[in-house]
Amino acid sequence: MNQLRTHIEKIIPLDDDEFELISSHFTYKKYKKHQFLIQEGESVEYNYFVLKGLLKLVYTDEDGKEHIVGFAMEDWWETDFSAYYLKKKATMSLECMEDTEVLCLKLEDYRKLCAAFPKLEHFFLEKAYMGFISAQQRIISTMTTGIKERYEQLLEKHPSLIQRVPKSLLAAYLGVSRETLSRLSL
Amino acid sequence: MNQLRTHIEKIIPLDDDEFELISSHFTYKKYKKHQFLIQEGESVEYNYFVLKGLLKLVYTDEDGKEHIVGFAMEDWWETDFSAYYLKKKATMSLECMEDTEVLCLKLEDYRKLCAAFPKLEHFFLEKAYMGFISAQQRIISTMTTGIKERYEQLLEKHPSLIQRVPKSLLAAYLGVSRETLSRLSL
Repeated sequence: MNQLRTHIEKIIPLDDDEFELISSHFTYKKYKKHQFLIQEGESVEYNYFVLKGLLKLVYTDEDGKEHIVGFAMEDWWETDFSAYYLKKKATMSLECMEDTEVLCLKLEDYRKLCAAFPKLEHFFLEKAYMGFISAQQRIISTMTTGIKERYEQLLEKHPSLIQRVPKSLLAAYLGVSRETLSRLSL
Repeated sequence: MNQLRTHIEKIIPLDDDEFELISSHFTYKKYKKHQFLIQEGESVEYNYFVLKGLLKLVYTDEDGKEHIVGFAMEDWWETDFSAYYLKKKATMSLECMEDTEVLCLKLEDYRKLCAAFPKLEHFFLEKAYMGFISAQQRIISTMTTGIKERYEQLLEKHPSLIQRVPKSLLAAYLGVSRETLSRLSL
């Protein structure tokens, strides 16, 4: 749980009692490589804070083709956020690419904690703004930038991700075929 | 200012004193069609709440081609958020497509208000989550959906937008040429 405390305290201070109450609302879970945390079509119970491991958030289109919406690794939050927050069925799946350990937070517990500690909303607001900025930058990048530049941007932003993610999935994230990525010598 | 109060009170309650203090931190500004609220390369002083009018948030690529990152109209918030929040130079421009009236909020005043009224962070968190969900849906839609379906999704989500935005700009938003949009009889 120390990892979660350090992570939150980068944005807001917490005393021991506060953190004890906060951490009591998280559940620890461990998954093997290839296990699913979220399956398309099911309810999404949790938002996940990644302690260890690597995950992919995947949208599968009507033709069965996988599109990578995002990756997540240590200290990232990940879920099918729209389904989680709006209590709808998942349109994406969340799958482990490595053995993974997470802390799980239910929406009800998230709301309880925010009511108890309004400063937690400051923490989540900061996270939400950064998520929004990243998503908007990805939209711009998709509209305007060549594959090679997008690969290089990803490399610059998340060097450790590139080392851990197979090239075929990087291709699915960048929206090109594995062959195209190879042709660019990436 | 009543419009802003109604807008905020959809999410959090406010008493008269609270709203008076909040509204005192906003500045009213009026722009003519084609005027810029944000110009690429300049500092971004404000987040804008649109009282009346229509705006486009534009990213111009190296070849001088315009890409529409988003539109904004009545009761929407719009700015180059990354530049505003991270105090960087604008990478996008924000231009009026109709005569427009806005309420402007400086980042310093935003922070002051959130410190004074933590529940305002709950309001902005809700807005940030909806912005994030929209951006993520747009990423998925760009990766997986044909132009016609994307046009129909936009029509369903924002019918009034489609009526007010010229086809050439809808094409720039959808990432296709005006001719492609015509060929699809859209």
